Amino acid sequence: MLKVAILGGSGYTGCELLRLLLSHPNVKITAITSERLAGTLVTDNFLNIRNTGLKFEPMNLKKLVKKADLFFLCLPHKTSQKTVAFLHKAGKRVVDLSADFRLKSAAVYKKWYATPHNFPPLLKKAVYGLSEINREKIKNASILANPGCYPTSIILGLAPVIGKGFIDKDSIIADSKSGTSGAGRTPAQPFMFCEVNESVKAYGVTVHRHTPEIEQELSALSNKKLNVIFTPHLIPMDRGMLSTIYVKLKNKTALAPIQKLYREFYKDEPFVRVLKNGVLPTTKAVKGSNFCDISVFLDNRSSKKPTLIIISAIDNLLKGASGAAVQNMNIMYSFDETAGLMTLPPSP
Amino acid sequence: MLKVAILGGSGYTGCELLRLLLSHPNVKITAITSERLAGTLVTDNFLNIRNTGLKFEPMNLKKLVKKADLFFLCLPHKTSQKTVAFLHKAGKRVVDLSADFRLKSAAVYKKWYATPHNFPPLLKKAVYGLSEINREKIKNASILANPGCYPTSIILGLAPVIGKGFIDKDSIIADSKSGTSGAGRTPAQPFMFCEVNESVKAYGVTVHRHTPEIEQELSALSNKKLNVIFTPHLIPMDRGMLSTIYVKLKNKTALAPIQKLYREFYKDEPFVRVLKNGVLPTTKAVKGSNFCDISVFLDNRSSKKPTLIIISAIDNLLKGASGAAVQNMNIMYSFDETAGLMTLPPSP
Amino acid sequence: MLKVAILGGSGYTGCELLRLLLSHPNVKITAITSERLAGTLVTDNFLNIRNTGLKFEPMNLKKLVKKADLFFLCLPHKTSQKTVAFLHKAGKRVVDLSADFRLKSAAVYKKWYATPHNFPPLLKKAVYGLSEINREKIKNASILANPGCYPTSIILGLAPVIGKGFIDKDSIIADSKSGTSGAGRTPAQPFMFCEVNESVKAYGVTVHRHTPEIEQELSALSNKKLNVIFTPHLIPMDRGMLSTIYVKLKNKTALAPIQKLYREFYKDEPFVRVLKNGVLPTTKAVKGSNFCDISVFLDNRSSKKPTLIIISAIDNLLKGASGAAVQNMNIMYSFDETAGLMTLPPSP
Amino acid sequence: MLKVAILGGSGYTGCELLRLLLSHPNVKITAITSERLAGTLVTDNFLNIRNTGLKFEPMNLKKLVKKADLFFLCLPHKTSQKTVAFLHKAGKRVVDLSADFRLKSAAVYKKWYATPHNFPPLLKKAVYGLSEINREKIKNASILANPGCYPTSIILGLAPVIGKGFIDKDSIIADSKSGTSGAGRTPAQPFMFCEVNESVKAYGVTVHRHTPEIEQELSALSNKKLNVIFTPHLIPMDRGMLSTIYVKLKNKTALAPIQKLYREFYKDEPFVRVLKNGVLPTTKAVKGSNFCDISVFLDNRSSKKPTLIIISAIDNLLKGASGAAVQNMNIMYSFDETAGLMTLPPSP
Repeated sequence: MLKVAILGGSGYTGCELLRLLLSHPNVKITAITSERLAGTLVTDNFLNIRNTGLKFEPMNLKKLVKKADLFFLCLPHKTSQKTVAFLHKAGKRVVDLSADFRLKSAAVYKKWYATPHNFPPLLKKAVYGLSEINREKIKNASILANPGCYPTSIILGLAPVIGKGFIDKDSIIADSKSGTSGAGRTPAQPFMFCEVNESVKAYGVTVHRHTPEIEQELSALSNKKLNVIFTPHLIPMDRGMLSTIYVKLKNKTALAPIQKLYREFYKDEPFVRVLKNGVLPTTKAVKGSNFCDISVFLDNRSSKKPTLIIISAIDNLLKGASGAAVQNMNIMYSFDETAGLMTLPPSP
Repeated sequence: MLKVAILGGSGYTGCELLRLLLSHPNVKITAITSERLAGTLVTDNFLNIRNTGLKFEPMNLKKLVKKADLFFLCLPHKTSQKTVAFLHKAGKRVVDLSADFRLKSAAVYKKWYATPHNFPPLLKKAVYGLSEINREKIKNASILANPGCYPTSIILGLAPVIGKGFIDKDSIIADSKSGTSGAGRTPAQPFMFCEVNESVKAYGVTVHRHTPEIEQELSALSNKKLNVIFTPHLIPMDRGMLSTIYVKLKNKTALAPIQKLYREFYKDEPFVRVLKNGVLPTTKAVKGSNFCDISVFLDNRSSKKPTLIIISAIDNLLKGASGAAVQNMNIMYSFDETAGLMTLPPSP
Repeated sequence: MLKVAILGGSGYTGCELLRLLLSHPNVKITAITSERLAGTLVTDNFLNIRNTGLKFEPMNLKKLVKKADLFFLCLPHKTSQKTVAFLHKAGKRVVDLSADFRLKSAAVYKKWYATPHNFPPLLKKAVYGLSEINREKIKNASILANPGCYPTSIILGLAPVIGKGFIDKDSIIADSKSGTSGAGRTPAQPFMFCEVNESVKAYGVTVHRHTPEIEQELSALSNKKLNVIFTPHLIPMDRGMLSTIYVKLKNKTALAPIQKLYREFYKDEPFVRVLKNGVLPTTKAVKGSNFCDISVFLDNRSSKKPTLIIISAIDNLLKGASGAAVQNMNIMYSFDETAGLMTLPPSP
Repeated sequence: MLKVAILGGSGYTGCELLRLLLSHPNVKITAITSERLAGTLVTDNFLNIRNTGLKFEPMNLKKLVKKADLFFLCLPHKTSQKTVAFLHKAGKRVVDLSADFRLKSAAVYKKWYATPHNFPPLLKKAVYGLSEINREKIKNASILANPGCYPTSIILGLAPVIGKGFIDKDSIIADSKSGTSGAGRTPAQPFMFCEVNESVKAYGVTVHRHTPEIEQELSALSNKKLNVIFTPHLIPMDRGMLSTIYVKLKNKTALAPIQKLYREFYKDEPFVRVLKNGVLPTTKAVKGSNFCDISVFLDNRSSKKPTLIIISAIDNLLKGASGAAVQNMNIMYSFDETAGLMTLPPSP
C-alpha cells in the first residue's frame, strides 16, 4: 500500500481527494493537514466521509515528511512552492494541485501571479499532469503539476485538432462556465449564496490566471506559440464546468471526419467520452465523475472560414482537480489508471 | 451471482437502483424495462451510467420472469399490484418500490389510493421493509414492500422512543421538507424549473398518502393505534429530505438520557448516525449516501409538557427509495448488509 | 415631503428600504449611512437602484440628526439601542428594524440577546409595529420596533384565532422555512453558496431569538402567558418565508367557520390575503411584495383533538422587514397605508 | 387612455406584460386571452397580480377586435401570423412578441421556422422593434415585431461598433447564457426542475432560430451581409440573459476610445447602462428591470488582431420581451418612453 498524505485538506478539493483516496485499493492515507481544523476528526468537518478515526493535523513538515511517500498538496500558491521544494529535496514525490509548478517560465509565473518563483530549476523538472496528453512523462514525474480546471476542459477539447494544419491556430476563443465550488471554501461576499444565486456573470475577463497555462500547453501541442481568448463565467450551481470553444477552420470542410479524429484520439481513454453526433454535453452528466464529455459542431454558414465549435464538460472538482490528481497518481505508480475513479455518481 | 431485474427503470428511482446494483459485488442485472425507452441503451438515457451494453426492454412479463430471481419494481401503483402477484405466483422474490404492498389493510389502501386492492392475501404476506425495524422478517420475505421516503425519515426518527411510556403518543407532528426528485421525472407544470425554483410550499396537507403508512408502522411499534399530523413541503433542490418531528413528553425530563436511548437503539446500525449533542442534520451531509442522520433536541420551556424535537435527514432517492431497496436485498440474501452501499458521495 | 434617513444602509434590508422609499410619493431620502461604503454612490453598490446622486455617508449622528424627521435604523442590536436613545432625545421619530426595542422586558432581552438593555424606560415607550395588530398605537409611536420576520409570519397566522376559546393555547408549534437573505450580507462560511445550495437544515432549534418575541405578542393577544415551540429552517433560495403552524383545538369542529374567522379578521387589510379553501401559499407568490398569504387546514383524523394547520407566506425582506417598516411609516404619518407598497413584483 | 388587449396571456411573457401594463399611466387593459384558463380570474393564475376583476377570455377575434386599439400578441408562431393579418386588416395596431414578423424575407422565415409565411407583404410593413435602433420607424409602425431576447442582448452589445471600419465584421461570435423562463411555461422534460438544476448546457448549437434575426439586423446596421456564430446556453436560474460577444479588430488599438464610443452612442438612452471601466455586468443587477447593462473589454495579447469582448446583460422577460414591448408601445403612442418601466426591482 502506497502511503499518501494530503497537505491542506480543509477545502473542497481536499475533501474530494480524501473521498477518492479512501476508496482507492492501493493507497493508505497516513496524514491530512489543516491548521484551522487541527486536532478535529475529519468526519466532523466532512459529513459525507464516514469516520475512519482520521484527524486533521497541523502543518509540521519535518514530522510529516516521514509519514508518506506521495504528497498531495492543496495549498495556496507561494506556500505550495516552498513545500514542494522541501519534499522534493527529501526525496518524496509530489502531486501539487496549486498553480505553482504548472508554468514552465518563472517570468510568466511572476507576471500572472504577481509573486516571484523561487525554484526555477524545479519548474523544469515538473511535469504538467494532463494524463491524456503527458502520460509517458507522468510515469516518472517527481513533481507533478496538476492542471487547472479551465485548462483541462479546454485543452482536452482542442487536443485532437490543435496540431492539425486545417485549423487557424490564432483564432481560438474559449468561453467557460463554472460552478461555484471552484472559488473555494473561504468566506467572501461575492460567493455568498444571495450574490451567486439567480445570477450569471463573467469574471477575470482578459486577465484570468489560467490563460498562460492554456496557452503554454496548446502551444506545445501545436508547435506554435499561440494566444487564446479565454473568458470564465460563474454559474449558480455547486460544481460542473462547461467550455464552449470556437476555432476557425482554414477551408470549408465536413464535420464527420473531424468527429472521427476525436473518436480516434480518445478511443483508448477511459475518462474522455466523445458524444454521438448532435448530442450536447451537460455538466450534470459528468457531475461526481472523472469524465470529460466532448461534442463537436461545425458552423459552415458564416463566411468562407467555417467555425468549429467544441463543447466539453467536466466536474471541476474531479477531472478538473482531485480526480485528475488520483488519475496521475495511478499513472505514476503503475496502478490501474481507473483505480478509485470508477464509482458511478448519483443522479440527478 | 444473484440475477436481478428492474421493472420500470426510466425514472429517477430506477436510475439510482441501477447505479447501486451495477457496483454491487453479488448481483448481475439481467434486465431493465421501460416501454418508452425500449430498445435504447441505458447509458444514452442515464449519462452518469457507463456503457455496459445494457438496453431497456419492453415489459413482457412472460419473458422477463425467466431472466431473474429477484425483481425490483419501480412501477406505478395498480400496475405494481398485478405484476407482484404474477411474479409471486411464479415463485420469484420481489422488492416493490411502489406503495402497493405497504399497507396491511385493503380498506385503508382503497381509501387513500382511490383504487381497490385486488390481492389482499398477498398484503398479509408482504413484509414492510424498513431494515432497521424489520430485519428478521425481511430475511425471509417473498414480497418486500419498500418503504416510502417520508415514512422512512419519520419512523427512523421516532423508533427509539415511540414505544416508551414517557411520550404522549397522540401528540406527534411531522413537518417534512423534500427535494424535487421525489416528484418523479414525468413532465408536469408544478415541477417545472421556474415553478419550483426560488420557492417553498407545503402540499398534500392532511391528505398525503404516506400518512397511513407512517401511522400503521408507528402504531405497530408502540402497540397503540395512533394518528400523526404530517405535512410535506417541496424544496428547490434535487434531492434530500429533512423531517422535523415534534412530540410531547408526559413530564419534565433531561435530554441526555433520551440521546442515550437513540445511541443505544442505533448502535449497531451501519446507516443511522445519531449526531453529537447540538449538531444539526443537513440534507447535504447525506446526499448521495444511504445514511439517515438524526439529532434530538428538547424544549423544556413550553408549559409543563416538554417537547422533544427530532430532526432526521436522508437522501430521498437512496435511504428513501433505492438505497433501502438494496439494503433489503442484502438482508434477504444474507449478503453483507452494506454491500454496494458504502461508496462515499461527492461533496459539495 | 417627509425627510427620512436610513442608518446602516449597506445590507439587504437597507437596500430594500431604499428601493421602496425612492418610489414613495410622500418622502424624501436625505441620508443613507454606511461606514464601509461611505463616500461611494449608492447605485454603484446596489445596481438595481438607478443613480439619484445619493451617496453613503459615515455615521455622524450629530450631523445626521438635523437632516431628517424620521430615521430608519438597520443597525446591529446594541448599536441600535444607543442610536435610538440619542435620536429620541433629540425629538426624532424612529423605526428600528433591529430587535432592540421589540421585547418589553429588559430581563428577557438580556437573557436572549446576552447583553444588557441600557434603556428600559424606552422599551416601555416603544410600540411593536405589527401594523395589522397595533395600528392605533403605531399612529403615535415615537419609537417603532419593527417586527422580526419569523414573528410576523407566525403572529399574522395565529392572530384571528389566538384569543378564541376553542384553541389549546399551550399547543402551538411553528415550523418556519426561510430564504437565505435573512442571514444578511456579511460573509460567513455557513451562508456561502456551496454550503446553502442543494441543502435544507434547521438551525437555532429551541434557542432562536425570535421565540420570546413571538411569545410576548401571542400572549398579549390571547391574554394568557403562553410558550411556543419554534423551529426555523434555512432554504436554498434568496428570499421568502413559509411558516407552517400547528395548534390543537379543544373539540371536534368544522373548517369553514374557522376560515370565515380569518376572512373576517383580515377583510379590510390591504396586505393579508386569506386564500381560497385548499389553495396553498407559496413564497414565490409573495416574492417582491408586501403580502402575507394565509391558508388554513384542519386535520380531524388525529385523536379527539383536531389540529388546525395554518400556513403563511411572506417575503422576509418586505412584509418581514422593509415593507413592514414603510407600512408603519405610512400609519405613523397618516399617509395612505399602501403608499409605495403596491408595485407588482416580477414573476417568476 | 389607450385600450389594449393581450392575446395569449397565460405564459411568463404574458404575465410580465400584464404586470407592466397594469401599472402603466396611459393604458387600460380591456382583454386578456387564454384558451386553457378562459373564465378564470387572472389573479388566481398569477398570484403576484392583485385582483382587478380581470378574467381570461377565449380567443374570439371577432369579439376581441372591437375591444382594443392596440393588441399585444404572445401567441406561438404561425398562429400569430394569421392573427396579425386579421387585426391589421381591421385597422388595429399590433405588437407581436412572436417571431412571425421579425424576418424581412419569407424565404429565410420558411428555412428557419419550417413553415411558410403566408403574408409576405405584411413582412415588409412590419417594423423591427429594437427601440434604441429603430425609434423613428417604430413611431408609425402598424405591425411592430418585438425582438427576440438573444438578438436584443447581442445587437445592443454590437450596435455602437458594428458600422465602424475598425472591426472585422466576419469575426463575430456571440456566446449567450439564459435563465430558464425563456423556455416558456409548457411542461416538458428538459425544463423540469431536476433536469435544469445544478447543470449548464449549450443548445441549438449552429441552428438556433434567433441566428437569422441577429444577422439581419447587424447586416442592416453595418451595410454588409454578415454571418454570426451564435451559441445559447441554459442556466439554472429563473430569468436573466448574459451575452459574451467576441469580435476581432483590424489593428491594435486602445480600449478607452471604444468605451467612449459606447457612452456616446447610448448617452440619451434611458435603459442602456454602459458600465464603468472594468465593472462586470451580472444578470442579477438587471433582474426585474428593463435595463441592458454593457461593459467592453479588450484583449490585446492575442496575435496581431486584438479581440473586443463585449458583455451585455438583460432580463430576458423584460428588455428581452415584455419590457421592450411596453417601451415600443410608448414610442408608438408618444407616451413618455419610460412610462410603466421605471419601478425598481427587488434585490437580491
